[in-house]
Amino acid sequence: MTLRGMEILGKSDVIVYDYLVNPRLLSHARAGAEIIYVGKKAGVKEMSQAEINRLLTGRAVKGKIVARLKGGDPFIFGRGGEEAEALSKKGIPFEIVPGVTSASAVPAYAGIPLTHRDITSSFTVVTGHEDPSKEESNIPWDVLSNIGTVVFLMGVRNIGKNMRMLMKHGRSPDTPAAVIAWGTYPSQATVTGTVGTIAGIVKKRKDITSPAVVVTGEVINLREVINWYERKPLFGKRILVTRAREQAESFAGLLGEMGAEVIEFPVIEIFPPGSYEALDNAAARVREYDWIVFTSVNGVTKFFERLLDSGKDVRELYGIRIAAIGEVTAKEIEKKGIRVELIPGEYRAEGLIEKFERENIKVQASARKTRARMHRAHYREDPP
Amino acid sequence: MTLRGMEILGKSDVIVYDYLVNPRLLSHARAGAEIIYVGKKAGVKEMSQAEINRLLTGRAVKGKIVARLKGGDPFIFGRGGEEAEALSKKGIPFEIVPGVTSASAVPAYAGIPLTHRDITSSFTVVTGHEDPSKEESNIPWDVLSNIGTVVFLMGVRNIGKNMRMLMKHGRSPDTPAAVIAWGTYPSQATVTGTVGTIAGIVKKRKDITSPAVVVTGEVINLREVINWYERKPLFGKRILVTRAREQAESFAGLLGEMGAEVIEFPVIEIFPPGSYEALDNAAARVREYDWIVFTSVNGVTKFFERLLDSGKDVRELYGIRIAAIGEVTAKEIEKKGIRVELIPGEYRAEGLIEKFERENIKVQASARKTRARMHRAHYREDPP
Repeated sequence: MTLRGMEILGKSDVIVYDYLVNPRLLSHARAGAEIIYVGKKAGVKEMSQAEINRLLTGRAVKGKIVARLKGGDPFIFGRGGEEAEALSKKGIPFEIVPGVTSASAVPAYAGIPLTHRDITSSFTVVTGHEDPSKEESNIPWDVLSNIGTVVFLMGVRNIGKNMRMLMKHGRSPDTPAAVIAWGTYPSQATVTGTVGTIAGIVKKRKDITSPAVVVTGEVINLREVINWYERKPLFGKRILVTRAREQAESFAGLLGEMGAEVIEFPVIEIFPPGSYEALDNAAARVREYDWIVFTSVNGVTKFFERLLDSGKDVRELYGIRIAAIGEVTAKEIEKKGIRVELIPGEYRAEGLIEKFERENIKVQASARKTRARMHRAHYREDPP
Repeated sequence: MTLRGMEILGKSDVIVYDYLVNPRLLSHARAGAEIIYVGKKAGVKEMSQAEINRLLTGRAVKGKIVARLKGGDPFIFGRGGEEAEALSKKGIPFEIVPGVTSASAVPAYAGIPLTHRDITSSFTVVTGHEDPSKEESNIPWDVLSNIGTVVFLMGVRNIGKNMRMLMKHGRSPDTPAAVIAWGTYPSQATVTGTVGTIAGIVKKRKDITSPAVVVTGEVINLREVINWYERKPLFGKRILVTRAREQAESFAGLLGEMGAEVIEFPVIEIFPPGSYEALDNAAARVREYDWIVFTSVNGVTKFFERLLDSGKDVRELYGIRIAAIGEVTAKEIEKKGIRVELIPGEYRAEGLIEKFERENIKVQASARKTRARMHRAHYREDPP
């Protein structure tokens, strides 16, 4: 996804998206945006092109900012041209946001550059499944059979027919060929062979299904050296992450970097308590405390939120000392412009009490009693 | 630029970049990153490919994260394949980040889709200037002359020769042709003609220079309807923005959306005062004040920074009331978790004094004297 694409997603009133768009992208839509799925999984037509055009122009003439989100590049077999024509004919201003086409991204993830100085200085991209409503083939087979690299997008369904056509028009059956299914996804699977053998190889492999890109040409030999994605240490591993959704992202990101397929399956949920009464009471009487101990980032965020809601603000904490369980909690407090005076070595409430003792902070007569009497001014999630 | 590319830029120790990379991207490098320009403007060789390969592997074996930043897609005439081979041979792990190739982005900005259901279901991309070290042409001219859309990257220098070759191999001189110079930039210039006429048209136009993309094929006719970028209301207008650099961005962004070429020429510079003594004194004696008046965002930022540096923090402001000149200043204070108690209607110090008077706030005996005696606790930039 490009930065420009993301920027536009964030400010659109309506998002009209296709099959093969990563649904995670939709989380960047602004709150309240209307999100419409128009499908077009190969072979399954949820909505006709004419209907999509009417949808886009209809929303736009009402003054809405409409984002038309497609996988790949809108002007490469994306029917972006047809949609742009429809908008233009209604006098609706629009912008085309070019994208990364799967024609280059998918081979790149399989370690196949489309061009190479020593091999070929041109490549051709062709659709693997022609519009079935067309009477005659638009594909220049005699041409494809005589050019360096050829990329067939959506090419797995007709691979047998397409390879036969290449050979019939003079392509050597020994030309290297590769099929990459689910390219750039953690479930990516690649098979290689030749124009003569690849269709048979694909037939035997159940993991080589649509969406798939077919490449033919000598550049495929570079894969042996360049193949980088499928060699990542965790490639092919499916890893379940059970952390709370809000906290899973950074960990899932690290695993993804190593090539893993990450499935987020949160078994912990963080949600607001049934009542804020205890916290609000503590906030109202905040000036009675000598210390405030924060035990989590959520606690910090919520405490200051409720403090503001109660008509007060951080100035109220004058003379009160601040402790935090853990560096991350401390950082969150420091973001509010407040120094943290105490962080126990051990990241539990018990560690704090020990630290209080060691630093000779007399909260009550003895540490035992302290444990029982400490005001629990920190925010804690209710158990689900 | 893709999100993944940006993410990697931000965490790299070394960034090795080319001519035609937008230098603004480099501002996303992390502080302290080593940034190396390796050139390769067409015809001017700053560094050979072998030298670049050595640079990349040399930095990487030292344990550095190296980003190789190229315009377009690294695996489409980008020599990304050669660089990946060099890394692989040294056993250095790497990732390829596919990009938006100018082969699709530039025609898109000229309103030319590469494919269209009714016109062509394939396109070919070829380099307009072949590697001069090569003895024989690698370009399959007979093939290009028989295919729908052909895109010549870096195609303006050899346009005469290339069009002649197409015609010699059977391409009709009436085939539509277009040249887009500085595509996707505000200085984009497009000319259209035919394979027979375009070279002559380019010769007469001084604004059609490298970098340029040449397109041939019937899809060019769609430009008449789809051309969207060059029709933006401010397209072709060069606008000078004189605001301070830190403040120019959002305004420049709006102008850019309208198609303008924005030149940032800041005539105001915001820099730290020669001495922080006055501010530090005020911060040290902050509890003596009844009111603190903030007059700018910079003032807010600096005041709280110096307050922290002096060993104190926001808690110190207990009992002190806060005023802000302007909503933006107020927002910055509220970010610190502090309520703003007064925002004058008029955004100048005089407006504040009036407001104080109207609200019957007795700072001193009379408003006149107040004017003179008010402690200037706000931060003000020294005149340059």
